[in-house]
Amino acid sequence: MRPSGRAPDALRPLSIEPHVNLHAEGSCLIRLGNTHVLCTASVEERVPPFLRNSGKGWVTAEYGMLPRATATRMRREAKEGLSGRTQEIQRLIGRSLRAGCDLVALGERQVVVDCDVIQADGGTRCAAITGGWVALRLAFDRLLKAGSIQRDPLGDPVAAVSVGLYGGVPVLDLDYPEDSEAGVDANVVMTGERLIEVQMSAEGATFGRDQMTALLDLAAAGTAALAAAQRQATGR
Amino acid sequence: MRPSGRAPDALRPLSIEPHVNLHAEGSCLIRLGNTHVLCTASVEERVPPFLRNSGKGWVTAEYGMLPRATATRMRREAKEGLSGRTQEIQRLIGRSLRAGCDLVALGERQVVVDCDVIQADGGTRCAAITGGWVALRLAFDRLLKAGSIQRDPLGDPVAAVSVGLYGGVPVLDLDYPEDSEAGVDANVVMTGERLIEVQMSAEGATFGRDQMTALLDLAAAGTAALAAAQRQATGR
Amino acid sequence: MRPSGRAPDALRPLSIEPHVNLHAEGSCLIRLGNTHVLCTASVEERVPPFLRNSGKGWVTAEYGMLPRATATRMRREAKEGLSGRTQEIQRLIGRSLRAGCDLVALGERQVVVDCDVIQADGGTRCAAITGGWVALRLAFDRLLKAGSIQRDPLGDPVAAVSVGLYGGVPVLDLDYPEDSEAGVDANVVMTGERLIEVQMSAEGATFGRDQMTALLDLAAAGTAALAAAQRQATGR
Amino acid sequence: MRPSGRAPDALRPLSIEPHVNLHAEGSCLIRLGNTHVLCTASVEERVPPFLRNSGKGWVTAEYGMLPRATATRMRREAKEGLSGRTQEIQRLIGRSLRAGCDLVALGERQVVVDCDVIQADGGTRCAAITGGWVALRLAFDRLLKAGSIQRDPLGDPVAAVSVGLYGGVPVLDLDYPEDSEAGVDANVVMTGERLIEVQMSAEGATFGRDQMTALLDLAAAGTAALAAAQRQATGR
Amino acid sequence: MRPSGRAPDALRPLSIEPHVNLHAEGSCLIRLGNTHVLCTASVEERVPPFLRNSGKGWVTAEYGMLPRATATRMRREAKEGLSGRTQEIQRLIGRSLRAGCDLVALGERQVVVDCDVIQADGGTRCAAITGGWVALRLAFDRLLKAGSIQRDPLGDPVAAVSVGLYGGVPVLDLDYPEDSEAGVDANVVMTGERLIEVQMSAEGATFGRDQMTALLDLAAAGTAALAAAQRQATGR
Amino acid sequence: MRPSGRAPDALRPLSIEPHVNLHAEGSCLIRLGNTHVLCTASVEERVPPFLRNSGKGWVTAEYGMLPRATATRMRREAKEGLSGRTQEIQRLIGRSLRAGCDLVALGERQVVVDCDVIQADGGTRCAAITGGWVALRLAFDRLLKAGSIQRDPLGDPVAAVSVGLYGGVPVLDLDYPEDSEAGVDANVVMTGERLIEVQMSAEGATFGRDQMTALLDLAAAGTAALAAAQRQATGR
Repeated sequence: MRPSGRAPDALRPLSIEPHVNLHAEGSCLIRLGNTHVLCTASVEERVPPFLRNSGKGWVTAEYGMLPRATATRMRREAKEGLSGRTQEIQRLIGRSLRAGCDLVALGERQVVVDCDVIQADGGTRCAAITGGWVALRLAFDRLLKAGSIQRDPLGDPVAAVSVGLYGGVPVLDLDYPEDSEAGVDANVVMTGERLIEVQMSAEGATFGRDQMTALLDLAAAGTAALAAAQRQATGR
Repeated sequence: MRPSGRAPDALRPLSIEPHVNLHAEGSCLIRLGNTHVLCTASVEERVPPFLRNSGKGWVTAEYGMLPRATATRMRREAKEGLSGRTQEIQRLIGRSLRAGCDLVALGERQVVVDCDVIQADGGTRCAAITGGWVALRLAFDRLLKAGSIQRDPLGDPVAAVSVGLYGGVPVLDLDYPEDSEAGVDANVVMTGERLIEVQMSAEGATFGRDQMTALLDLAAAGTAALAAAQRQATGR
Repeated sequence: MRPSGRAPDALRPLSIEPHVNLHAEGSCLIRLGNTHVLCTASVEERVPPFLRNSGKGWVTAEYGMLPRATATRMRREAKEGLSGRTQEIQRLIGRSLRAGCDLVALGERQVVVDCDVIQADGGTRCAAITGGWVALRLAFDRLLKAGSIQRDPLGDPVAAVSVGLYGGVPVLDLDYPEDSEAGVDANVVMTGERLIEVQMSAEGATFGRDQMTALLDLAAAGTAALAAAQRQATGR
Repeated sequence: MRPSGRAPDALRPLSIEPHVNLHAEGSCLIRLGNTHVLCTASVEERVPPFLRNSGKGWVTAEYGMLPRATATRMRREAKEGLSGRTQEIQRLIGRSLRAGCDLVALGERQVVVDCDVIQADGGTRCAAITGGWVALRLAFDRLLKAGSIQRDPLGDPVAAVSVGLYGGVPVLDLDYPEDSEAGVDANVVMTGERLIEVQMSAEGATFGRDQMTALLDLAAAGTAALAAAQRQATGR
Repeated sequence: MRPSGRAPDALRPLSIEPHVNLHAEGSCLIRLGNTHVLCTASVEERVPPFLRNSGKGWVTAEYGMLPRATATRMRREAKEGLSGRTQEIQRLIGRSLRAGCDLVALGERQVVVDCDVIQADGGTRCAAITGGWVALRLAFDRLLKAGSIQRDPLGDPVAAVSVGLYGGVPVLDLDYPEDSEAGVDANVVMTGERLIEVQMSAEGATFGRDQMTALLDLAAAGTAALAAAQRQATGR
Repeated sequence: MRPSGRAPDALRPLSIEPHVNLHAEGSCLIRLGNTHVLCTASVEERVPPFLRNSGKGWVTAEYGMLPRATATRMRREAKEGLSGRTQEIQRLIGRSLRAGCDLVALGERQVVVDCDVIQADGGTRCAAITGGWVALRLAFDRLLKAGSIQRDPLGDPVAAVSVGLYGGVPVLDLDYPEDSEAGVDANVVMTGERLIEVQMSAEGATFGRDQMTALLDLAAAGTAALAAAQRQATGR
């Protein structure tokens, strides 16, 4: 039924390769089917102005897509400026990662998580959150090992997955062909059994409370599977 | 318990004044407590390039805030360029209004809904959606009356309201002091009993499925009350 | 003779509604016929770099127009950047208000006067100056009452009006249809019987000294009437 | 009395050197004391969109200043974007030159007059108008000679000069030290005895009608002298 | 003697992995030591305006660097706009690839070669040219196979390498620590034994003709070795 | 053989007029045939952030072209932003002038060399370097005379010239018609017999080592002649 031939509740093949970048404090390459996102975490010993002398740290994210990550080449954002879509995505990634992080334990430093889409086939913002958490975890491991921080600022993995109604059926982890046909489409960010963010929207359609429930059930199963892979990649 | 003294399920005083703009095809001033948004709908006899010769129309939205709409003066966006927040909001408004609109019935023309916040006290994006629908309704009434369109592209009112957990309690229609303290915060867009968009997010917190249910119940009651006011303002 | 049916020396119906903004230190909504401008004065306890440690304050102005203030929707300036016309107008407003203000009495603080055109029908820059002075007057009243300043920095009202040659006849307070036909067009800023700024220009025409004199006479009468309304609105 | 030692009604030494640019259809270098402006007129066989198929032509102007035209080096506008001051000036130059030009006789073509300040010592916008007219005159002579236009679109020279109150005394053609001290400052554009534009403004001061009259008398004498030099430089 | 311990004439370990991108017509990942560049070639069935109806095609290049490609995180170019350095590099890459390409044989289509630096350790522009040629080769193979072009537009490989004087000694293929210390630094682009571009420059130093000769000899040996790897990766 | 009728090794008529700008610490107008570049050197008592407290100074360059410097009017860079070509050129000029300058002897101050092309006919970047050195020399003479610096930071003149293969023949100092036809084109910067920068590139062609040698021989003779003129203009 799905173009990909997957069962409605099946994730795409998943791999998370840690330590792919020589320079970054934490990094991984996450592959979810044909969606590949390179995530790096950069630790900076300064915080944004609104946090100076607060004793608290900050986690922020930036997101980009290489011009030929997509089927048709896109214009380079360095020429165009940040699109609204890009800004919306990077705000979501940052908010999601902060929700799973104790900023006081981090101390007055900032971590910038860069998520760059090397190849895209739907679900890039969710892959960025899932991979971004791994990069953050590895950077914090280094800070803990170096004694720069005493208490671990991170708890359970933060993972995100897309769900949607495809041909009226709730499906997990939409690839691009599915996503472009889905009438209702959601991104769900979870940590353990708790929700961090739900963005469910209809393009040219509406949805009922029962459909919402079915989609959230699927998402909970999906993020649990992602969290297991995050733990394995980080040795936690 | 609430800084405003309102009951958890109470909306702020609401008024929708239609026909406030001499030039626009449809317009209203929506006041929800101290949040005041001026909404105009401008009909243009052209569509974006991707819809040319498709027979379909388009509804899009733009959002702005006057510099002193807020307690502290903000820099003018004409100087700064569109912020990520602004772009995110105007994409939400446009998506919400399109979900309640039959673009084929509209025919190959575009309606631009401008939502300008004259004064802000929380909930501006929701007020913009609710008021934007009224401006759109009035513009469509004019097109119908002029015979430019034959079939009404709009159905039930599209209304939006914010809900959140304030001090752990689900509350409706947060004003700014409540919004800045709330751990979980959601914007819910509905038409009748159907959902169009749910954006629920936690800043530095998480939420459970039961809390989500309670918040959606509140939102459903709130949007029903808003829809009644939308009908009254447009004589529907 | 005039499209509006007014006598050559007649102003349009005028109202100045003070205290329209909850947040601003001073504010008013000025309506001159169908031209409506919202003016707010925001007091900031800092000055531009060139005045630091000078003991002097500063008054500056910003001007904007909502996209559907005009008969045909304009592109939003937040997308386009500040146009040359906008910059020219806000420099004029700032210069005019400063000319009527003792910057030493103000002390080292800045007042930003925002003039946002809600609806336009010609003469917006003049209405902005006239309304801007009212907002400034109310902000200064608050500073005086609070004891933040000891000596009143403002003297007589600063008022502005447009005049022009319409069909060869000098007329006062041009609306948009008149303005777009006028061969000679002027904006005159006065305080009492003294001039602050005269900008008289011909588009595709020229004018003689005698015509200039007639236009300035009209403007003097017009600004006197505006000043009376400014006094009334501010209780001065 | 004047820092320059000039009589109140004395212009600075003036020279207008025509044909200084190999490529441009018309060009001159105007020197008014230490203010040196290079003016070129470029003829383009197209008009702005709003004039297509109107049978009318267009004259527009652009203005720039080399970074070290001034006593202190300014940042290059190519880095900064066009300042509000620059845009205001180039609108003035264009309006002034168009007022002296029959756009129907020009036919559907555009002339861009570039005025680049090589060295500045006050009065650059006036020198640009005066020199710009010479460049335009020479370009039109070429078009007439080539038979591209049949009827001469230009009449009497358009010339501009600054006047102001310096130490309370009306003076002509202010240089930079005078201009920065003057309480009232005006730019006057004339053609023959007719006015095209008067911009008189007070910075931190006001002025009376009698002072305005004295300043306009001075300006009339000054532009007459400039017009004689314009005729000589163009052989008219 | 070299920080890397390499012999003066030794390249870093080199690998070129073809077909790394699902969407692009040609692609490779080139690794030269710790410098890793992802190159994609995108074929577009249109040409820039200056080539329309010329029968000729175009090859152009764009270059980017991920924020954490470098030891210290750089600001994202999507925020900053294209830097001068980036523009200079992408002009060099495009010029170099065009020099080795018969644009008439390509026909009226454009190939955009995107070179994105995933990780940087000196020599990124040279790696981009070398890898860019491989992506171009693979894209042309596809066009030839599909019969879209009849005659192969590409000849011998185009390869580029950096050389420099490090501690006064000519060395090949500088890594970042060497590059930042070198007094003279050159990028040499060759095809077979012919030169396409030589950019040799001294920062705070000068060089003689004999030193130039020695550096060019080294570069010729280096590009020959790169060309062998390019042939192997593309099966030519 | 050359369109200009010159011998292959002939420079165009050259003049260097020093002290052309009233305000700048050093200045000249260099004319090489129809290429005219105005060069000013501005001394600023501050350095870029990366040199603060280093005891070293900095020399940087900016380059611009008036809109009608060229046969067809170009859009003004103040409207367009700095093009890639402009940035590449100003980086070359700055690098070349710094190579001939002892930045320690300069002390912690910055000299900005502005090179503005008044009229262009090929070879503008080389003329800018040659004229820029003269402006720098004159500014340093003033600093030495004033006692602001004790030791002369400048040595032999830095001069630049273009060479190229025109119709297969090596020619010196290409004008625009030659430059646009040349298959190989180089800019060579020298000081005495030492090289500072060689940029030799082929557009749609390649070149051999022997051709490179012949071009460098021509360039050496050309820069020697330019250096003699630089000495004469500065009295050195």
